[in-house]
Amino acid sequence: MTRISILGAGSWGTALAVQLAKKHPITLWEFDPTQVEAIRKDRENRKFLPGVPLPYNVTIFNTMEDVIPHAEVLIFAVPSRFLSATAQQAGKFDLSGKHLVSLVKGLEKGTHRRMTELIAAASARYASLSALSGPSHAEEVAQNIPTAVILASADSGAEPLIEDLSTDTFRLYFSSDTAGVELCAAVKNVIAIAAGICDGLGLGANTKSALLTRGMEEIRRLIAVMGADERTVSGLSGIGDLITTCISGHSRNRHVGEELGRGRNLPDILGSMVMVAEGVDASSAVLELSRAKNIEMPITEAVCRVLFEGSVPAEEVKRLMSRPYKREFE
Amino acid sequence: MTRISILGAGSWGTALAVQLAKKHPITLWEFDPTQVEAIRKDRENRKFLPGVPLPYNVTIFNTMEDVIPHAEVLIFAVPSRFLSATAQQAGKFDLSGKHLVSLVKGLEKGTHRRMTELIAAASARYASLSALSGPSHAEEVAQNIPTAVILASADSGAEPLIEDLSTDTFRLYFSSDTAGVELCAAVKNVIAIAAGICDGLGLGANTKSALLTRGMEEIRRLIAVMGADERTVSGLSGIGDLITTCISGHSRNRHVGEELGRGRNLPDILGSMVMVAEGVDASSAVLELSRAKNIEMPITEAVCRVLFEGSVPAEEVKRLMSRPYKREFE
Repeated sequence: MTRISILGAGSWGTALAVQLAKKHPITLWEFDPTQVEAIRKDRENRKFLPGVPLPYNVTIFNTMEDVIPHAEVLIFAVPSRFLSATAQQAGKFDLSGKHLVSLVKGLEKGTHRRMTELIAAASARYASLSALSGPSHAEEVAQNIPTAVILASADSGAEPLIEDLSTDTFRLYFSSDTAGVELCAAVKNVIAIAAGICDGLGLGANTKSALLTRGMEEIRRLIAVMGADERTVSGLSGIGDLITTCISGHSRNRHVGEELGRGRNLPDILGSMVMVAEGVDASSAVLELSRAKNIEMPITEAVCRVLFEGSVPAEEVKRLMSRPYKREFE
Repeated sequence: MTRISILGAGSWGTALAVQLAKKHPITLWEFDPTQVEAIRKDRENRKFLPGVPLPYNVTIFNTMEDVIPHAEVLIFAVPSRFLSATAQQAGKFDLSGKHLVSLVKGLEKGTHRRMTELIAAASARYASLSALSGPSHAEEVAQNIPTAVILASADSGAEPLIEDLSTDTFRLYFSSDTAGVELCAAVKNVIAIAAGICDGLGLGANTKSALLTRGMEEIRRLIAVMGADERTVSGLSGIGDLITTCISGHSRNRHVGEELGRGRNLPDILGSMVMVAEGVDASSAVLELSRAKNIEMPITEAVCRVLFEGSVPAEEVKRLMSRPYKREFE
């Protein structure tokens, strides 16, 4: 038994709490006091994970004092735009001896810092720092549908966590390529928007598969330039996560793309969503990074043109199909 | 304009004929005279590609004399079990100066020869020999849904074909890794059966994505041992083709898996299908090869146990989830 605390009671934080409560006592921190009250009263997160009862050994608090000091494993599960502030607040506690894990997917605009880099910057000392990523829609994890993910850390002290955080229906693999795993996690959401656009346009499986594959090739080029392990892109946190995003009805990024493909505009789509579509913020950060590093990322560019410049999706597909003939890998 | 002949009027051969007829005159050879008559009369392949009219410049014959001598590009599109015989028959003609292309997916049982190896063995001389593979369901190619595939050849003389065989909705990339592309094409059908089993069991997107990703890792290990380019597995002929197989309703291999997952047995399933599920034959050939080369392929093994030994699919999923904890890539 390990004392685990999770910061952020969104759908993924809550689902992981439910899953890990099979083996460990969990404390969950949520910044919104109204949500904390509602979850306490209902024993269910009706806003972000409806229909899933919270096990008895999951306790939810509004104050970090109640969740951080006793934790052996501290998991960050807030939206990317709140991570820096949350990490700074958590960093005021003594985190030495604690294993920190990030579930957050994104890339900071302007600085292009990865999510664990934000956490590291805010924390003086800790036992290990990892990123957890992979094909893991929260709704399915909460329903005990078999799921496999990656825990990536440069700290070898994090490796035993893969057994500790695994259950009979949730299996972790270890990777030492944190940068690769986090870059995949951020960029795959951009490609998921592109896949959604295909769906919205009524295109078929051939087009979507080609787009995902060429999208992964963009991520591979990015990863290579950033000095990470190119193989990561073909693993669970790369293509694995992208596939689940694209075949599942649960993905918010795919949903954004689908609505764009149908002709709706971005403010209208985002205005009607409860949850965050991380790919929208990630798109512009990834585009910035690709330009700074001079990496060819035609699909990311097309997604940004559709998202932010009102470009017509069908024209972008034609443009991608008529690029110069070339070899698959350069 | 290039004179193109296609051997085999199954769904893929017919769809490619329809697509390439936008740019080139096509002759199509089919071994079954009844089918030749029916297609001539209907100007449509009602058995394998119903609903798609044949363009005026596609001509179908029952005799190789009518299609091979004038061809500049000769495309093999028969089921894998008939390829050797077809190639031997074609090899009696003078093929010097002709570009040979294989659309066939499989691995010969016993010898583990790849499809282009069967063609090479039967042909004395030719200008180039390539394998064409990737996410290309025939039904969608025939409907002009944008599609991207790989043309792989050790002969650099084949590279200009990528422009010649591309159209506005069908785009080729070049690869020099023929072995990698053909091994991917054969093994991905085995993994597609596994994905179908997931569907038949009612499992979700997380499980299927994990299975596809870990399946690709098996293929990567196989490709590495066979001396091919590991990157190919993350390209169009690897994960790309696998994704389309797994998200499309058209895949026969996925269909076989789905019915197995629902509890039907193999002879019963195969007995009710018109088209060939190449993954069934490929499964045992791949298993043989993995044992001969001592490569760990747990998903392929599980598929073979379900296919040929009556193992219970749900038990195989449990078994895969409870393997020892490990790193993602070894």
